[in-house]
Amino acid sequence: MSSLIKSAKSILPTLDRVLVQRIKVPQKTSSGIYIPEKNAPKNNLATVIAVGPGFTSQNGELIKPSVQAGDKVLLPPHGGSPINIEKEEYLLMRDSEILAKVQE
Amino acid sequence: MSSLIKSAKSILPTLDRVLVQRIKVPQKTSSGIYIPEKNAPKNNLATVIAVGPGFTSQNGELIKPSVQAGDKVLLPPHGGSPINIEKEEYLLMRDSEILAKVQE
Amino acid sequence: MSSLIKSAKSILPTLDRVLVQRIKVPQKTSSGIYIPEKNAPKNNLATVIAVGPGFTSQNGELIKPSVQAGDKVLLPPHGGSPINIEKEEYLLMRDSEILAKVQE
Amino acid sequence: MSSLIKSAKSILPTLDRVLVQRIKVPQKTSSGIYIPEKNAPKNNLATVIAVGPGFTSQNGELIKPSVQAGDKVLLPPHGGSPINIEKEEYLLMRDSEILAKVQE
Amino acid sequence: MSSLIKSAKSILPTLDRVLVQRIKVPQKTSSGIYIPEKNAPKNNLATVIAVGPGFTSQNGELIKPSVQAGDKVLLPPHGGSPINIEKEEYLLMRDSEILAKVQE
Amino acid sequence: MSSLIKSAKSILPTLDRVLVQRIKVPQKTSSGIYIPEKNAPKNNLATVIAVGPGFTSQNGELIKPSVQAGDKVLLPPHGGSPINIEKEEYLLMRDSEILAKVQE
Amino acid sequence: MSSLIKSAKSILPTLDRVLVQRIKVPQKTSSGIYIPEKNAPKNNLATVIAVGPGFTSQNGELIKPSVQAGDKVLLPPHGGSPINIEKEEYLLMRDSEILAKVQE
Repeated sequence: MSSLIKSAKSILPTLDRVLVQRIKVPQKTSSGIYIPEKNAPKNNLATVIAVGPGFTSQNGELIKPSVQAGDKVLLPPHGGSPINIEKEEYLLMRDSEILAKVQE
Repeated sequence: MSSLIKSAKSILPTLDRVLVQRIKVPQKTSSGIYIPEKNAPKNNLATVIAVGPGFTSQNGELIKPSVQAGDKVLLPPHGGSPINIEKEEYLLMRDSEILAKVQE
Repeated sequence: MSSLIKSAKSILPTLDRVLVQRIKVPQKTSSGIYIPEKNAPKNNLATVIAVGPGFTSQNGELIKPSVQAGDKVLLPPHGGSPINIEKEEYLLMRDSEILAKVQE
Repeated sequence: MSSLIKSAKSILPTLDRVLVQRIKVPQKTSSGIYIPEKNAPKNNLATVIAVGPGFTSQNGELIKPSVQAGDKVLLPPHGGSPINIEKEEYLLMRDSEILAKVQE
Repeated sequence: MSSLIKSAKSILPTLDRVLVQRIKVPQKTSSGIYIPEKNAPKNNLATVIAVGPGFTSQNGELIKPSVQAGDKVLLPPHGGSPINIEKEEYLLMRDSEILAKVQE
Repeated sequence: MSSLIKSAKSILPTLDRVLVQRIKVPQKTSSGIYIPEKNAPKNNLATVIAVGPGFTSQNGELIKPSVQAGDKVLLPPHGGSPINIEKEEYLLMRDSEILAKVQE
Repeated sequence: MSSLIKSAKSILPTLDRVLVQRIKVPQKTSSGIYIPEKNAPKNNLATVIAVGPGFTSQNGELIKPSVQAGDKVLLPPHGGSPINIEKEEYLLMRDSEILAKVQE
């Protein structure tokens, strides 16, 4: 993504989409050796950056996303559109794809 | 899953999802020899750890999950997203995928 | 299925699922020789052991199963999840998959 | 099908299913030679033996089958579950699969 | 189709089905030579012979076919179930498959 | 299409279908040479000749086509049923397939 | 697209479609060398040129597009129908395909 987008804050997801960023966890082998991020297994834990306004259900009701900005969430193994902003990778996915919230 | 998630208790399934854990049953051959868990056939019996708030049906009604935390349930042979927490495997699946409850 | 499930009676199907067991019919060739059960053609006749509470239709109505425990029913050639309890095979399937009831 | 089902009369189709039996028509070649039933082209004309109670539509209305027992009907070239009772072949299919009624 | 069906008039289409017959047009090459019907390109113009009573929409309303017996209509290139009655070919298709009516 | 259809005016599209004809634009290469119509790239601009009465939505409302006869419209790259009338090619397609109207 | 369409302004998207144009960003390699537009990676940022009137939902409500002319938006990696007007490329896509709005 070009330098046009200044920060993730300027992204306003549409409908029931949510913008999330995977949480980076220093990955160490059992013997304590750090694994460079590139080779580390993908961590499915993420932080919600922004959520859309919701979508209109078939009977005309506004269904808001079930997660909010700041929530810790569990992502499905696949899905979502990757977005790169300032060399950071984010994901835009539907609220209904989020598997769970994670209480701290 | 990294060490970020302290325990399964911190997982709050979204919508009509439920978090379950397969019940471990000491598997013995007919001649009484214990089968190491890795090779034991997958047992479809599980305990419900947590359930989501439910989903909004097309006519705007909240449909709650039909199972609750603590229920013994029968899982379908396939489906669900595996989640590893503290070296224990859990599954997140939709309430409608659960085949049956098992009364004790 | 492990020995955890004491009897089929403890299985409570969810939603519009029904638990059925095929009726075993002593299979004889035309010349009267008994065919061991293993090789006998699958009989599509079954008894309903238990039924679920029903499912909520799109307009919020509870649609109960059309069959009840004790009914004789005709199964479709395929479908259903097999469940083994105490070396007996049962099937869990959706009420709408049942082809017909059979009056005695 | 085993000898358990005494007659087609004991079959009560579920939902919007209908039980039909193809009408056997003595098939003759143009030169008057009878074609044994086995090789005769499948005749799509059938008699309705029994109909189900109907199904509940999405807005909660009971939609009854559009054909009744005794009607002559035109079957689609494919579809339906074959059922053998006392060496006679019947078909169970959905009411909506029936192409037309045939007035005598 | 056997000789059981006396005439197309006895066919009562179900639901939103319509019975049509392609209009036979003497096909001539540009140089005036008649093309035998078998080789003539299929003409998509047809006459409506009979229409069904309509189908019940999801909100319980009866939706009648948009064409009537006697209408000239334009058929899609594919679709419909062919029915032969007294060596004449007819087609049974859904009202919604008919592309257009043709005013004379 | 045989000579039976006198003119496009006699075509009354059903439901939400619309009859359109591509606008023929004299195609010239950049150096001004005319490209014979047959080889010219398909132009997606068309004129609406006739529109259907509309279709009944699931909640029983009549949804009329969003374009009218005489409108200039933008066609999708694929789709629609080609109809030849008096050596002119027309297309019958659903109103919802039309991409846009083009104001003159 | 032929020269018939004077400008993008004359395009009125139908239903819930939106007309967008990708924002051209001078692409430079890290060492400052300009990449000719043809080889530059596709930028998913676009400007909304025009939006349709909206579509009628199943319960008869008009659902308007969630974006407006002038909005900066994030496009999905695939989808939309390309339209060339005066050697400029535009895209027509459904409002629901737009991933997010981008605040400036």
